[in-house]
Amino acid sequence: MEERLKKQLSFLIEIDKMKTILRQTLIANGTRQENDAEHSWHMAMVAMVLSEYAAEEIDVNRVVKMCLLHDLIEVYAGDTFCYDKAGHSDKAQREARAADKLFAMLPEEQGAEYRALWEEFDRMDTPDSAFAAAVDRIQPFLLNYCTDGHTWKLVPVNSDMVYERMAPVKTAIPTLWPVLTGMVEECIEKGLLPRVNI
Amino acid sequence: MEERLKKQLSFLIEIDKMKTILRQTLIANGTRQENDAEHSWHMAMVAMVLSEYAAEEIDVNRVVKMCLLHDLIEVYAGDTFCYDKAGHSDKAQREARAADKLFAMLPEEQGAEYRALWEEFDRMDTPDSAFAAAVDRIQPFLLNYCTDGHTWKLVPVNSDMVYERMAPVKTAIPTLWPVLTGMVEECIEKGLLPRVNI
Repeated sequence: MEERLKKQLSFLIEIDKMKTILRQTLIANGTRQENDAEHSWHMAMVAMVLSEYAAEEIDVNRVVKMCLLHDLIEVYAGDTFCYDKAGHSDKAQREARAADKLFAMLPEEQGAEYRALWEEFDRMDTPDSAFAAAVDRIQPFLLNYCTDGHTWKLVPVNSDMVYERMAPVKTAIPTLWPVLTGMVEECIEKGLLPRVNI
Repeated sequence: MEERLKKQLSFLIEIDKMKTILRQTLIANGTRQENDAEHSWHMAMVAMVLSEYAAEEIDVNRVVKMCLLHDLIEVYAGDTFCYDKAGHSDKAQREARAADKLFAMLPEEQGAEYRALWEEFDRMDTPDSAFAAAVDRIQPFLLNYCTDGHTWKLVPVNSDMVYERMAPVKTAIPTLWPVLTGMVEECIEKGLLPRVNI
């Protein structure tokens, strides 16, 4: 029992590193980059607050859990910016290796449960993971909206790329789509996002 | 419907301020103070990982929810250091006012639900809130353990004060108590915490 507990406490200390993994997104007041721990907390809050709009029946508790641990492997694999093509070429490999290392710190069945939730999140092929993926688009979108499109300027990103990136929201939380579209259009009108019509 | 959604999105942007509310605790690598968003995420992870040891039957999903929102009112009320006596004299009043303002941003029944969870957390009088309170002691303890007792030195704190502060763990997660006691004794032996015997 004590051995089991000590493994769990070591894991809980190890994942503190999430607070040092920086994302490209700025926090809403624009003063600094957001880190993975903050992003995960904020995503869990978005999932909780917006769960009523899920297109399919979801288990919001599982979704919250997924949000909390979907980026844990980044303590070893680092954050890969969604528009970084080179980074995405070996992302899956890097993250699988990180998962092998990280989840092995936990008692076997607990590590397996968390890994399965992370893999489900990554596949986006269940109502819960499709909703979580939508939340993973909404949270940074809100921050971009608040910080004059900070990460959009880094690439740079145009309106089509934003709409493409946000697509999971359209299917998983359709009620939100018109409001979100309105916010994107507002950003285009402000000159934060070049409009591209296909 | 759109009005309701817009209120929820405004709330989700407002609570981004949690990322700017600094606590006295340092993150595990000792480089900077932890903020409320990180603390809340880390607490939710502690609750998830250690839920199997709850002394009473708990609903871990409610506990996770409680962890995620237990400090939300600090976006207006600020963080009150647990050893700050002056700060505690008007803490309840400050936080109630903050709750009035913050939860009113949400649709009525959702705001009421979150406020009730926060109030339950504060009362520590149910199995769920007693467990959440224990988690709220464990998480900063782990960080103090990793940072040579950083917040203990600020007061300064002695071994009795730590044992008193950690008391909710003894009743809510008794299995953890001997391991935790061992860690406290280790800190005393290292000279990080003066031993006081009553």
